[in-house]
Amino acid sequence: MEVTYLQPKKKQGLVMVITGYGKGKTTTALGLAVRACGHNMRVGIIQFMKGDMFAGEWKGIGKMMCSVELVSTGKGFCGIQGNPYSYEEHRENAQEALRLVQQKMTSGEYDMLILDEINNALHLRLVDLYQVLEILEKRPPELHLVLTGRDAHPEVVKWADTVSDVTEVKHAYRKGIEPQPGIDY
Amino acid sequence: MEVTYLQPKKKQGLVMVITGYGKGKTTTALGLAVRACGHNMRVGIIQFMKGDMFAGEWKGIGKMMCSVELVSTGKGFCGIQGNPYSYEEHRENAQEALRLVQQKMTSGEYDMLILDEINNALHLRLVDLYQVLEILEKRPPELHLVLTGRDAHPEVVKWADTVSDVTEVKHAYRKGIEPQPGIDY
Repeated sequence: MEVTYLQPKKKQGLVMVITGYGKGKTTTALGLAVRACGHNMRVGIIQFMKGDMFAGEWKGIGKMMCSVELVSTGKGFCGIQGNPYSYEEHRENAQEALRLVQQKMTSGEYDMLILDEINNALHLRLVDLYQVLEILEKRPPELHLVLTGRDAHPEVVKWADTVSDVTEVKHAYRKGIEPQPGIDY
Repeated sequence: MEVTYLQPKKKQGLVMVITGYGKGKTTTALGLAVRACGHNMRVGIIQFMKGDMFAGEWKGIGKMMCSVELVSTGKGFCGIQGNPYSYEEHRENAQEALRLVQQKMTSGEYDMLILDEINNALHLRLVDLYQVLEILEKRPPELHLVLTGRDAHPEVVKWADTVSDVTEVKHAYRKGIEPQPGIDY
């Protein structure tokens, strides 16, 4: 059997939003990095609100022989139980991450940028709607931009080409199973 | 800021199902492979009905300096427009893939097995419900088993620990945008 190799007549960057309350949003974004890597694309991942807890992807991305990097910023989820940092600190961190996104976006050194948890950061007002819309407006037309996190803003959804909502049907933690390496972190 | 390293008191394998009509099911599974790789876990991916069209992950997975392998089987999606192979051929391929899964599962050489599009293969009767349930029953308790594809069978959902349904809110192809490398394949 012959294998088909697709090739779009017109190459264009897409804006993809991955939202919803189920498990698999950041995970989807990591999978896109694998796929892009197979096409020799250059990928940048900027994680918002996630610098406080080790996740397998921190090491996993580093093991990919590709032009892919992951920068984890922030001090964990703003406002959740047990998080000791103030709103101001979280906002400062998210603003710093946003500047990093802008830098990378205008550098011309990436084919795909993943803004992990930015929907959530916007929902929590750590970044402002006009700031995210500005990024969408200034995106170079060949750059893929992926925005993950719960509660995607309707204006961002309106802008996007592809939007998936990951719905929770079941989650292991609801029956008391602790987070497991490889699946949950 | 100190980074927390989670460590479950009890390590256990999970059954995760990723279903729904939106974009991001196979992609989620690929992301799980990245995460698992960061924990030095050994991952096997068996793709059903997917051997006919090149996808970035075929190369991307090969570029991971991890114990991760991807075996793509089959001759494309059974029954869709343009697919020239008979039901019997598709079923034979899927049955072969299933034997591979059984082999790998009992080998003790994997920490995570990803059965990509098996839900769909079951829905199309290329594999039988009793065969999939047998796999779930015989799964070693520390092995993570991930089943992706549309139309997950209710019995499989019942068995699973974590189930996400990826809903399509929007998809680029609906406004006539061709599949783009790195995102769609």
